[in-house]
Amino acid sequence: MLYRNIRSSDDNKETINRFISNTPVFVCVISYTETSQIPGITAAGTNPDLITFTPAADAEFLYYGKCKSISGVPVTPDGIPTPALITRAALLRSKIPKLIVDAGSKIKPRVPAVSFGINHGENIMEKRAMSHADAEKAFEYGKMFGIQLGMMNDLVIVGESVPGGTTTALAVLTGFGINAKYKVSSSMKTNPHELKNQVVSIALERMKDISNFTSEPLDLVSNIGDPMLPSVAGIASGAVSQGVKVILAGGTQMTAVLCLLNELKVPLEKICIGTTSYVQEDKSSDIKYLVNSICDSVPILSIDLGLEFSANEGLKKYKTGIAKEGVGAGGSTIAATLKKRSNLDSSSLLASIDSEYESTIQKYQHDHK
Amino acid sequence: MLYRNIRSSDDNKETINRFISNTPVFVCVISYTETSQIPGITAAGTNPDLITFTPAADAEFLYYGKCKSISGVPVTPDGIPTPALITRAALLRSKIPKLIVDAGSKIKPRVPAVSFGINHGENIMEKRAMSHADAEKAFEYGKMFGIQLGMMNDLVIVGESVPGGTTTALAVLTGFGINAKYKVSSSMKTNPHELKNQVVSIALERMKDISNFTSEPLDLVSNIGDPMLPSVAGIASGAVSQGVKVILAGGTQMTAVLCLLNELKVPLEKICIGTTSYVQEDKSSDIKYLVNSICDSVPILSIDLGLEFSANEGLKKYKTGIAKEGVGAGGSTIAATLKKRSNLDSSSLLASIDSEYESTIQKYQHDHK
Repeated sequence: MLYRNIRSSDDNKETINRFISNTPVFVCVISYTETSQIPGITAAGTNPDLITFTPAADAEFLYYGKCKSISGVPVTPDGIPTPALITRAALLRSKIPKLIVDAGSKIKPRVPAVSFGINHGENIMEKRAMSHADAEKAFEYGKMFGIQLGMMNDLVIVGESVPGGTTTALAVLTGFGINAKYKVSSSMKTNPHELKNQVVSIALERMKDISNFTSEPLDLVSNIGDPMLPSVAGIASGAVSQGVKVILAGGTQMTAVLCLLNELKVPLEKICIGTTSYVQEDKSSDIKYLVNSICDSVPILSIDLGLEFSANEGLKKYKTGIAKEGVGAGGSTIAATLKKRSNLDSSSLLASIDSEYESTIQKYQHDHK
Repeated sequence: MLYRNIRSSDDNKETINRFISNTPVFVCVISYTETSQIPGITAAGTNPDLITFTPAADAEFLYYGKCKSISGVPVTPDGIPTPALITRAALLRSKIPKLIVDAGSKIKPRVPAVSFGINHGENIMEKRAMSHADAEKAFEYGKMFGIQLGMMNDLVIVGESVPGGTTTALAVLTGFGINAKYKVSSSMKTNPHELKNQVVSIALERMKDISNFTSEPLDLVSNIGDPMLPSVAGIASGAVSQGVKVILAGGTQMTAVLCLLNELKVPLEKICIGTTSYVQEDKSSDIKYLVNSICDSVPILSIDLGLEFSANEGLKKYKTGIAKEGVGAGGSTIAATLKKRSNLDSSSLLASIDSEYESTIQKYQHDHK
């Protein structure tokens, strides 16, 4: 009866039960890739300047319910809010602590953030995404931090905010030999597959030209990925080394993290991907195919947030395929629901999200009419 | 019988028992004040350049058992190691997680660190220590971070590494009306009280000259303190807001934090100062007087590490009054001893410290002969 809003890709309730926890923690890794500046590649931010600010704005929204690096609230002109709103509502409702990791953001968030001390990512069409040293540092620092989190918590949920991140994910998946074309998701209603494919094939051509390219996994990621990927992989690897469960909280971007973990021979038994049903059921992408191509024993948990029943038009639009996921919205709502004694079912979760929308986005819009 | 190496300033065993914990976390706040460059003010680092690197080196030593920002290990020519060695040994032995906070360090540590995004402190003899905005930010970010820690743990131990910090502590205590002259401790065998008094009286004169100085506590700290003080106060305040216990892990510097917390009306019931017996029994300072002048209900827990029985000459010298404390050595060994099921008594603690000394400092010296 419980958790009727959560599904596992193996259709086994026991798989869902494995991620029930007492002491979950949520980590949001914010990062940036210049790849996001390619026109038409992302819906995060309505103009190129805003795209740059999106990760910082998401981190701030998680803490404050408003932004500091940008004026206003992160919402499209049609009222569709950042998925950070969903994450914030779930974490507050279930009293799950949160930490921000700054892994190569371009705009520093105005919140306390764990710095991995790495640069933001470059446009993979033009040049190497990051130095090999930065990719190694991201993984190593991630691991050190993940170990500490694993000593404090029994479940680590890792989300991300990286505009343009599905394109770098596609590049990395393809680089690792996964047939990922037309399989990665998009924050836009119409998934710009052809554009992504074109960017990735240019990036792969560029990589081939580099004489010293090796098949070392972090080298590939440093070449055509983004700084979030090795950072999240490091955190997950540190956490599982402490015997702790991990939810990779995101859509198809997290399959690139999974692929990297697999290439690095990190054990995957304690790991799942946690996402929204909007990604899981998306016709323009195929997360299940991607995961099965990497390691078919890793489950995808997906949650139906029932946003079509929301009282707010902006939230209803998630069901139509806009935004869909991000900032760990799927994984955090799954973890909030599965947290012991949280007593959160689909209707109380939706009520929390609606209430959060009204007290933040709507209130701001009302105050600034 | 248990905890015979720990004393409480009220001589009440029940006070010690209040700080027994299941899920402690250690936080080391690294910071920097240019005040440390006044010749003769600190023993942290044997030359002005090294002083600047000490906080980063301490943070790195905690994680790696060696440093990255400096070559070699943080040890004096006589073999006296940084107190970070003691902290590292205690945390590893009792499996206590650790996080570094970068609150105005000048050299960024090569570890993952929570950044509070503030500048390092200026020489209080010459100018305002930091902007009022930075002091407020340090406290607010500290509080936000402390709240998250308090949601994950039942005890938060906060240590520091700030060369020259007892002088800024003296300034802040004096500014708040505490008769702290000749009462603050020193990392040196001979406490340079006259020099400290002179620096502080110049700083206080300078402050008087500022027309817009108010008696607001964070304004005073921003004027004559250092960035560690509002940061640690913020973390403590956030943790206690979650009903969690706090050990301010340090010597007389932590009395300045306590004073600030008291001025800011933060409840002090769940807070103690945790330090070494080398500070508690120091004839050249008076931590008990300082705490009693602020709030006599706050206990000082002190631990006798028995370093005079160490197998290593460098560690034996702690008993002679050099180093004494720092990087949370006292508070972390207290918390390690009081952690449930840690089974750590004074002899096994000393054995852990000795073993850590041999596998880090001594090994390095041997390898680089």
